[in-house]
Amino acid sequence: MTLKPVRVGICGLGTVGGGTFNVLTRNADDIARRAGRPIVIEQVAFRTLNPECDTTGIRTTSDVFEVATNPEIDVLVELIGGYDVARELVLTAIEHGKHVVTANKALIAVHGNEIFKAAHEKGVIVAFEAAVAGGIPVIKSLREGLGANRIEWLAGIINGTGNYILTHMRDEGRAFEDVLAEAQALGFAEADPTFDVEGIDAAHKLTILASIAYGVPLQFDKAYTEGISRVTAEDVEQADNLGYVIKHLGISKRTESGLELRVHPTLIPKERLLANVHGVKNAIAIMGDAVGPTLYYGAGAGAEPTASAVVADLLDVARDIATDHHYRVPYLAFSGIGEQESHLPMMPMEDITTAYYLRLLAVDRPGVLARVATILSEQGISIEALIQKEATEGELVPIILMTHRTREKQMNEAIRLIESLADIAGPVTRIRVESLDEHE
Amino acid sequence: MTLKPVRVGICGLGTVGGGTFNVLTRNADDIARRAGRPIVIEQVAFRTLNPECDTTGIRTTSDVFEVATNPEIDVLVELIGGYDVARELVLTAIEHGKHVVTANKALIAVHGNEIFKAAHEKGVIVAFEAAVAGGIPVIKSLREGLGANRIEWLAGIINGTGNYILTHMRDEGRAFEDVLAEAQALGFAEADPTFDVEGIDAAHKLTILASIAYGVPLQFDKAYTEGISRVTAEDVEQADNLGYVIKHLGISKRTESGLELRVHPTLIPKERLLANVHGVKNAIAIMGDAVGPTLYYGAGAGAEPTASAVVADLLDVARDIATDHHYRVPYLAFSGIGEQESHLPMMPMEDITTAYYLRLLAVDRPGVLARVATILSEQGISIEALIQKEATEGELVPIILMTHRTREKQMNEAIRLIESLADIAGPVTRIRVESLDEHE
Repeated sequence: MTLKPVRVGICGLGTVGGGTFNVLTRNADDIARRAGRPIVIEQVAFRTLNPECDTTGIRTTSDVFEVATNPEIDVLVELIGGYDVARELVLTAIEHGKHVVTANKALIAVHGNEIFKAAHEKGVIVAFEAAVAGGIPVIKSLREGLGANRIEWLAGIINGTGNYILTHMRDEGRAFEDVLAEAQALGFAEADPTFDVEGIDAAHKLTILASIAYGVPLQFDKAYTEGISRVTAEDVEQADNLGYVIKHLGISKRTESGLELRVHPTLIPKERLLANVHGVKNAIAIMGDAVGPTLYYGAGAGAEPTASAVVADLLDVARDIATDHHYRVPYLAFSGIGEQESHLPMMPMEDITTAYYLRLLAVDRPGVLARVATILSEQGISIEALIQKEATEGELVPIILMTHRTREKQMNEAIRLIESLADIAGPVTRIRVESLDEHE
Repeated sequence: MTLKPVRVGICGLGTVGGGTFNVLTRNADDIARRAGRPIVIEQVAFRTLNPECDTTGIRTTSDVFEVATNPEIDVLVELIGGYDVARELVLTAIEHGKHVVTANKALIAVHGNEIFKAAHEKGVIVAFEAAVAGGIPVIKSLREGLGANRIEWLAGIINGTGNYILTHMRDEGRAFEDVLAEAQALGFAEADPTFDVEGIDAAHKLTILASIAYGVPLQFDKAYTEGISRVTAEDVEQADNLGYVIKHLGISKRTESGLELRVHPTLIPKERLLANVHGVKNAIAIMGDAVGPTLYYGAGAGAEPTASAVVADLLDVARDIATDHHYRVPYLAFSGIGEQESHLPMMPMEDITTAYYLRLLAVDRPGVLARVATILSEQGISIEALIQKEATEGELVPIILMTHRTREKQMNEAIRLIESLADIAGPVTRIRVESLDEHE
């Protein structure tokens, strides 16, 4: 029995579009043997031809909506990026009964609930493995591979640019601005790096992972986002002395009070695998109640790594295209649109519980440590470690503190009080600390 | 629309059987929401009741074949282990039109070709995620998540007992026998540890991974297997000095001459994530042509981690049960029974290419190094590093050598010639070295 080919329309022929085109072409035979049928590129829509792609003999257009309405297309692959046009394109394709594969994390994180509702009504697939962590099959692993588990927490390095910067700051003792400028020159960071270094891109991806992990609707607006631009070479070094590495993590935990959803610089113990993920690579640690801790590592961006995930989704579509919609894996892992576990609220940041690294600059005067310790104690915060540098005549003395786990609200209040002390200069630096062990 | 429940019969209620029973029971609601239908335990077959399982209200039997022929059962879960009875049980279930989920790596590695042929003819699923690396969804990742890729190589720590022993040898500078005895006392190693420490268990798993990676039939008999019982504390220390860690790896590579399939102690650079996988944990690195290097980490054994994989397979069965067999993911990733890429031969060990660590004991006499270097040079082997310890009066001097990549056949000949030198005492220790970088 030979099944008829699945006909694909690729919208966008930039980095990821070009990669997808080339992987589908180069590995066509193996892909057909895996899918049990050929996956053919029927049409490609682009504004500028990608010189790395040979589109000879393939129908091309400059109008992506032509693909969305083309009756010869079974699956639209959305690789144009952005919010508004991408949303309209995907909704148009769904309306025309087409399955959709997308690598667009912003689109899914912000408009996913609307898109999945429309797709469910039409009985079509919307697949988005490439939207999180590029080529790492983490959505499939979380949604299917760990399907037996109640997910307890997940934590990931899900922005390669941020990890590149932190890796070089640590290895070379350099400042944030310095490494950023280099990353921009090398093409690892955008001219406007806000999306990456301020954690917005990571928050998009974290939003998607959390919905799949816990069966809740996408709630990007509830994510707490803090970037790495204020991490200093001094903090990186102090963390190292204490046995920690600073990583920019997306973290989501299930607690008795609800779900945590936060992106921020984080101290993690050196011996954790996540601490050993360097450069532009991504990795996600996931804790399930049955499986315990697992980790998934690989390239989080780039033409062919991202294409790898796009084509994996196309393979799933090829297999499920004839399947009744009720038997397909639900978009966000749990069946029932609108029947998500919405009784699990997203927690406000001040209610989360974590440990903290604090760095203060104190005037070298007797009693300053006692005053700081008293403030912490009065807020119910206990100190795990304290390092006070030797004072040099007339200079401010750095004090490094590591606390045990406490509520963010208490820590905010403690920091406010410490900053109001006469012998503390400037703002207190606060970086959250996660042990990522099996019992937290 | 509510789909009718999938009815499961569990055969074996030991460690993994008990874990599967408990995970299916505890997480029943979430599992039903993921599958879109309940997955219910209809019958359990066991010889001794597991005190951790409450089988009240569930039909039990001491005869596993009752499950295989029970018309009320949709899926038989084979968790009895071993070869012959398990094979007969699985074939009987298939003959009765039942889908099968198994955690039995020995069964799949040795009898898989026969089982898949029978299952294909009956149009039933045989799923075996739990057979490799316990709870890590590596089969799903390799077979589906990386489906766009031509797999170049994979290398894994796929036996927890072996990794536990090597981890403690390194951390504590202890001897193999010493750590093994402790592992046995703690229950991490069997009374007869042969399967684990001699690499047979790892070779079963590697055989399965390689078939899925390259689309070739299962060929356990072609795997080269070397255990860790001859790794000494001295080698562990020397490797450390050179920037390496010794791990017991299962390695499979695609080369121009065919496929490599080998399990042996291996020096790998300290900075690799695999080198940082400690204790009983497992991890598999997989290199695809599009995605580049990826890695999957987690618990490779234990009641609930293994159950996590068994239940994930049950979720797949629940979704695919009504699907035409042609649309399902092929057992070994590529469609066409007997149409595998059989033109890719398994290479004999003497044809593989790798780098080597050698440790020799030499009489402290002028010219011994020159004689060793001449032998290597005449075999076309170039030396990357050489360490000669300071001689103590009358003692044998250890010489440590690291070579560049060469053919095993050349190395065998070189070792034979070195051992025949008058000033070399005893056998040469040889451990293979893999850089596991992206370009090898």
